[in-house]
Amino acid sequence: MIHVPLSTISTWERFYRANFINSLTGFKSASLIGTVNKQGQTNLAIFSSVVHLGSDPALIGFINRPVQAAPHTLANIQATGNYTINHIHPSFLEQAHQTSAKYPENVSEFEALGLTPEFLDASPAPFVKESKVKYTLALEEIIPIKVNNTFLVIGRLQHVQLDESILLPDGFLQLDQAGSICSNGIDAYYATQLIDRYEYAKPDLKPKKLPKV
Amino acid sequence: MIHVPLSTISTWERFYRANFINSLTGFKSASLIGTVNKQGQTNLAIFSSVVHLGSDPALIGFINRPVQAAPHTLANIQATGNYTINHIHPSFLEQAHQTSAKYPENVSEFEALGLTPEFLDASPAPFVKESKVKYTLALEEIIPIKVNNTFLVIGRLQHVQLDESILLPDGFLQLDQAGSICSNGIDAYYATQLIDRYEYAKPDLKPKKLPKV
Repeated sequence: MIHVPLSTISTWERFYRANFINSLTGFKSASLIGTVNKQGQTNLAIFSSVVHLGSDPALIGFINRPVQAAPHTLANIQATGNYTINHIHPSFLEQAHQTSAKYPENVSEFEALGLTPEFLDASPAPFVKESKVKYTLALEEIIPIKVNNTFLVIGRLQHVQLDESILLPDGFLQLDQAGSICSNGIDAYYATQLIDRYEYAKPDLKPKKLPKV
Repeated sequence: MIHVPLSTISTWERFYRANFINSLTGFKSASLIGTVNKQGQTNLAIFSSVVHLGSDPALIGFINRPVQAAPHTLANIQATGNYTINHIHPSFLEQAHQTSAKYPENVSEFEALGLTPEFLDASPAPFVKESKVKYTLALEEIIPIKVNNTFLVIGRLQHVQLDESILLPDGFLQLDQAGSICSNGIDAYYATQLIDRYEYAKPDLKPKKLPKV
């Protein structure tokens, strides 16, 4: 084991530090957020900070970087109150990563990268047709995180579109079967393999694995 | 593809809905947060909502459920300003999941489950000795999320302890090599397998894979 104090981390070169800190926090989702501005210009961008906030009501958050670093998604959500979140699969992973490039505002990442915008469920924001698990959110609240000028964007779940073969009888979604990728750091993408599911834990019971499907 | 509107989701039984909504948002980290109260009573609890907020300064957040549902970790962090986050590996996955049981305040999950508290780097909060990737945070801010009474707890990175074999020359951590697990939903745990890393994306360049190590 090595020990790295903050005083060392602070001296690191910018990209080394970004790789280290971004991968320290563990595996995470990577999803494409689809938005549209008031003129109908679509936008698509990869985010790895989607976080579950609650199931009832169903609230989902993501972290938006400072406005100057990542302006379009946030501005579109503020303008329309609506966005889609789309899982990423290996068949379009390269295009999904490429949405992190800083395209000008008048360029749609859908067009530039050959992904298909799909309009469903009366959502003005585009879905990614190629995605097998996707949902729309209505903006609930944007909470500024003052310490580093980022934002927690909170949305209320509206509609879900998914490949029904991954839905189990208890409501669980087998994302590994859909080939939804998982990510780490700023540029690494992974496939997953189920180890186990466990029953609801209680202090006086031994942990028990759920049977595999 | 099936279509599920919110009006359907709202009618679902509580556990079915929790399984569905929690797995919809994609893969996520699952980590053990170690804390201690002012009397020296240690606490350990599994969280799947750790989120990267920024690299410079290095800020890491997690979502704490409403106080009545998850009181101990939050109270200890408020009392001491300090906590540890520890990756989970298959060798103690069962114990890690079992920390989600509602043990009384005077029971340490370390003792109840046979995990080893380790005190390092002048951190009053305990690390999990069995973990190969772990770090301490100093509390920066607790932001109440009023819409559902949850909290975004923000910490400033202090010290990192890790197995040096997973650290690449560019600062990236090969978490799959450490066997850090990833999670989905409320009870499913996964191993991961690298698909690819990509170079920093620019609009006028084709996406390029990084060579595998």
